Amino acid sequence: MSEALVVFTPSGKRGRFPVGTKLLEAARRLGVDIDSVCGGRALCGRCQVNVGEGSFAKHGIDSSAERLSGFTATEERYRSRKGLAAGRRLSCQTLLEGDVVIDVPPESQVHKQVVRKRAEVREIAIDPMTTLHFVEVQEPDMHDPRGDLERLLEAMRTQWQLEGLSADLHVLQGLQKALRKGAWKVTAAVHGGNRIVAVWPGFTDRIYGLAVDIGSTTIAAHLCDLASGEVVASSGLMNPQIRFGEDLMSRVSYVMMNPGGEVEMTAAVREALASLAREVAKEAGVETDKIMDAVFVGNPVMHHLLLGIDPTELGGAPFALALDSALDLRAAELGLQDAMNRGASIYVLPCIAGHVGADAAGVVLSETPYLRDEVSLVVDVGTNAEIVLGNKNKLLACSSPTGPAFEGAQISGGQRAAPGAIERVRIDRETLEPRFKVIGCDLWSDEAGFAEAIGRTGVTGICGSGIIEVLAEMFLAGIVSKDGVIDGGMAGRTARVQPEGRTFSYLLHDGEPCIRITQTDVRAIQLAKAALYAGSKLLMEHFGVEQVDRVMLAGAFGSHIDTTYAMVLGLIPDCDLNKVQAAGNAAGTGARIALLNRAARREIEQVVERIEKIETAIEPKFQQHFVEAMAFPHKTGSYVHLTKAVTLPEPKELAGEEGEGRRRRRRG
Amino acid sequence: MSEALVVFTPSGKRGRFPVGTKLLEAARRLGVDIDSVCGGRALCGRCQVNVGEGSFAKHGIDSSAERLSGFTATEERYRSRKGLAAGRRLSCQTLLEGDVVIDVPPESQVHKQVVRKRAEVREIAIDPMTTLHFVEVQEPDMHDPRGDLERLLEAMRTQWQLEGLSADLHVLQGLQKALRKGAWKVTAAVHGGNRIVAVWPGFTDRIYGLAVDIGSTTIAAHLCDLASGEVVASSGLMNPQIRFGEDLMSRVSYVMMNPGGEVEMTAAVREALASLAREVAKEAGVETDKIMDAVFVGNPVMHHLLLGIDPTELGGAPFALALDSALDLRAAELGLQDAMNRGASIYVLPCIAGHVGADAAGVVLSETPYLRDEVSLVVDVGTNAEIVLGNKNKLLACSSPTGPAFEGAQISGGQRAAPGAIERVRIDRETLEPRFKVIGCDLWSDEAGFAEAIGRTGVTGICGSGIIEVLAEMFLAGIVSKDGVIDGGMAGRTARVQPEGRTFSYLLHDGEPCIRITQTDVRAIQLAKAALYAGSKLLMEHFGVEQVDRVMLAGAFGSHIDTTYAMVLGLIPDCDLNKVQAAGNAAGTGARIALLNRAARREIEQVVERIEKIETAIEPKFQQHFVEAMAFPHKTGSYVHLTKAVTLPEPKELAGEEGEGRRRRRRG
Repeated sequence: MSEALVVFTPSGKRGRFPVGTKLLEAARRLGVDIDSVCGGRALCGRCQVNVGEGSFAKHGIDSSAERLSGFTATEERYRSRKGLAAGRRLSCQTLLEGDVVIDVPPESQVHKQVVRKRAEVREIAIDPMTTLHFVEVQEPDMHDPRGDLERLLEAMRTQWQLEGLSADLHVLQGLQKALRKGAWKVTAAVHGGNRIVAVWPGFTDRIYGLAVDIGSTTIAAHLCDLASGEVVASSGLMNPQIRFGEDLMSRVSYVMMNPGGEVEMTAAVREALASLAREVAKEAGVETDKIMDAVFVGNPVMHHLLLGIDPTELGGAPFALALDSALDLRAAELGLQDAMNRGASIYVLPCIAGHVGADAAGVVLSETPYLRDEVSLVVDVGTNAEIVLGNKNKLLACSSPTGPAFEGAQISGGQRAAPGAIERVRIDRETLEPRFKVIGCDLWSDEAGFAEAIGRTGVTGICGSGIIEVLAEMFLAGIVSKDGVIDGGMAGRTARVQPEGRTFSYLLHDGEPCIRITQTDVRAIQLAKAALYAGSKLLMEHFGVEQVDRVMLAGAFGSHIDTTYAMVLGLIPDCDLNKVQAAGNAAGTGARIALLNRAARREIEQVVERIEKIETAIEPKFQQHFVEAMAFPHKTGSYVHLTKAVTLPEPKELAGEEGEGRRRRRRG
Repeated sequence: MSEALVVFTPSGKRGRFPVGTKLLEAARRLGVDIDSVCGGRALCGRCQVNVGEGSFAKHGIDSSAERLSGFTATEERYRSRKGLAAGRRLSCQTLLEGDVVIDVPPESQVHKQVVRKRAEVREIAIDPMTTLHFVEVQEPDMHDPRGDLERLLEAMRTQWQLEGLSADLHVLQGLQKALRKGAWKVTAAVHGGNRIVAVWPGFTDRIYGLAVDIGSTTIAAHLCDLASGEVVASSGLMNPQIRFGEDLMSRVSYVMMNPGGEVEMTAAVREALASLAREVAKEAGVETDKIMDAVFVGNPVMHHLLLGIDPTELGGAPFALALDSALDLRAAELGLQDAMNRGASIYVLPCIAGHVGADAAGVVLSETPYLRDEVSLVVDVGTNAEIVLGNKNKLLACSSPTGPAFEGAQISGGQRAAPGAIERVRIDRETLEPRFKVIGCDLWSDEAGFAEAIGRTGVTGICGSGIIEVLAEMFLAGIVSKDGVIDGGMAGRTARVQPEGRTFSYLLHDGEPCIRITQTDVRAIQLAKAALYAGSKLLMEHFGVEQVDRVMLAGAFGSHIDTTYAMVLGLIPDCDLNKVQAAGNAAGTGARIALLNRAARREIEQVVERIEKIETAIEPKFQQHFVEAMAFPHKTGSYVHLTKAVTLPEPKELAGEEGEGRRRRRRG
């Protein structure tokens, strides 16, 4: 039998095969990364290749021979149904007839990369836990008493080389009907290469996964196509646990005061997850039955409440987690079996420590400080700041008790980021007059038409990023001293500085309500920023660096604040401003990475295991750093060049780094 | 450091260890099979040994030395609390000080044997799937941010050498409270050596398992102590599915006629199992929380309905099972989490073929024909007869459509075995007068006081074993011919033979109701016994034997019938009568073996896989054997010597072979 040489690009893998060998078969035998769901039946079109375009001479191939079998009727049928570009062939239908160079385009590779928008982060290789396999199953007859499952397993073995599979009970319950409805052709979903978790009649080639960041305030979900990695729908909800307490500790207190309260909160968050899953599926036009995987991240309290674990121990020293390891669960274990496929699997990222949760692990997976030579500081600000510092040699983590001031709580005019909230502020250095922008309106407050543009919503308060900016501007304008005292002497220059008891305040907006920055507000932000700074400083000291090479600010607060102002106020240690980046919802991105790439799960588990956990509460140096960091700016003084900055960048978008696919956000 | 020699009997394992080594430690290092739940803390008393009794000289040991450390205060405390026989020591508290012979009594061995009453069957080595491990867990502190689970896992690793364990979600949910309640001492139950399925505060040393045979008519459960193998309570219930149809096929029909009917039947059988579990636990004084394992067997229809699988496919050719493999499940998957520990595991034995179920697999596991040189015929009679034939080289199985006549159904005066049913019959060869015994009364009907003894129950009908006996007696007395015709000529000798239309009947009992054996009844039994015989014959032909060496009759019918009469009628092929045995509820015994010994599960799975399945419906020879077997006695004629038998054995007890522990039965 004569043979032919085939070279696959871009891998360069090559080999000789008998004339008449299918290209897909040759690719598989050479270990070329080429996708297929239908197992070579011209149904899925995943195995497309480019032919006739290779630079033959370069590969030592004479370009004159007849190389491939002709375009088949089957391919024609596929082309008319689903389209097939010129120069493309289905490798499962194309036979080798001479020496050829075959190009495997990126979308035909199993382990294709999802491009992320930020250049500095790693791309995601698609390799989900759940894979699809179309099979033709032998019909039973009186001479073959094996069960339907055993014949399905044989098909998986002979048609997909998948050995030793088991099947979930719900699969067995629906198997006979699926096989008969599909005329003995079905598509099986296999989890982890060893467990059949779903069987659909006939051919199915799309399944989906849900990546969810369960925050104390909002829950954000992305529905991803597990084949392309694309986000097909996104949505967010207020965390319904808010009715049990605004912040984490008040929810823990609720449980302490109301034994069994954790059961209510667990039910509330699970219902919210179920409704989010249904919502994103509906928006993407996908049946919830096709959601086969989910990955959840959240801070330790959210993590425990999601799992139905009483968070009481997290409310007091020694802050013992019930567990810190990652978890593999079934949808039914979290009561989510009706909001996704009954066979869906759930992965929960590991927690790092008692106050550094699975959300922080998600941030680490997204930002990969553990892959870099340079020393990164990764900060996720919530009620606590979760801080990770390090590089590929060593990683440290701690949480720092910033309190909720950065989220607008415990600030006189403060509110959560929502329409009507002041988010940007500028103060004229001469007149000391402010101008601001509010969420939901594109105009500055001193621009014509502002009043009409904000309409009935009006100016309702000031959110975290607005507080940072107004304080930094007050400081830069000399209204607030280094020590954080609102200077009563300024009352002579502007009527906006007004006495308030024995201290002074600055009137930012004279309306209904009036929005003032009081001395108490300044103190609250001082305490928060000192805690954040002291936590970072403590880790730097443990690591043994004076300065960090890179700062990543994760989470909603990190995305909203202007990094320049953050450094003016001394929230974060000195760093080249070009190396300070907003990482968007990095926790959610980490969840998405773990959803799309199974190896990422083991990776983050191993990374978390080697992170050195620092407990700020028992570090005497923490108090010292904290006290030293109270002033504006902090003592290093190296922020000074920033005061010269005159052109400040325009506010960044709230949206995270990845904008692929449709997405929708609610601001809660 | 000086060393000492220790020899353990009965294993004979020996080795030298430093003086001061604990006996338990020495035993472990030598691989001596010695039990412990408390890990050497003198709590469980499982590691007791006999000292000072060995024949030292035989083992080359000089008997003069001081050999062991003295009896400790800890042992004294154990003795006063739980008792400790003279000459016994706790090996975890006893140190080696010189050369010794140490005897490990059977009850201290992990893999102790459970003695079965029948000499011909294999004993059961105790080696359950779930094991108990007492551990002391390190308390959390601010310097150790690991979760409670991770500290428990470390304790399991260092104190029990158990690596790579995972924990069920419900364990995590209760872990923190258990650890604190137990003051950081807990007992963990580990399933399969890799999964923590329960954690109790403090020390626990007894867990239990449930072995259940789910019959179409009755469900029989045994609660076993997983440490001793002892049956601590037994109970039975009518299968509540009876309200959907008396026999299997009428239940399958119910589903065909009432789509979704399988859901009701599944719920019914699961509720019955839950209530049985609670009942046996209550009777044994055991909390259901301590039931950690269950094994279920049942025929294919029961098997499918238990699992929530629509049995419709079993109702028609090609009789495809949804699956035939064994299944490992969690209690919650069958809705049984509230009737046993939430972490309990369930094992369902494999089915052999479409009509040969997991109950037959249980029978095979109990009777082990696959371990014998001799050829065994194993028969379990229900609505279908499940027949297995073979030896260690080859096994065959089939089912044969006997219909329900052997169970008393479709017989004019027939009923299930229950008080009032005639179960034994003798007919005087001269007078043709009958005498009989009914269930629930020790007297024969012709003995004085019979009428008073049966009391208000009266004689209600005739059950399977009674039908066999009356027919055999009628045949032996000449009332029924070889061809199964009731001889009208006998009407001249006895008024009990009476015309009935164009045929005759025999009046067995003249009362309310009258119990007659009609020509139709004889035909029904002829059809049933011909089917049973033809199935056996077909397997013998496939195997290539003319005669079998041994017959095991399993199940209630097999226990009730007198094997002599069974052979008179030709129910079973010729065999030495001494080699025909009732195996009791062998299906239930098989379930119990799989419950107590994990290796037995793999064993029966492998055996079932190599059983050759014969489908009687497509074997032309089956029809031929069937027709030939209609006559009394069948054609081989070799039964003839039996007609000389005059002393027939007394009826056997209903109870199965194993009578250990308390047991209770209801007759349904």
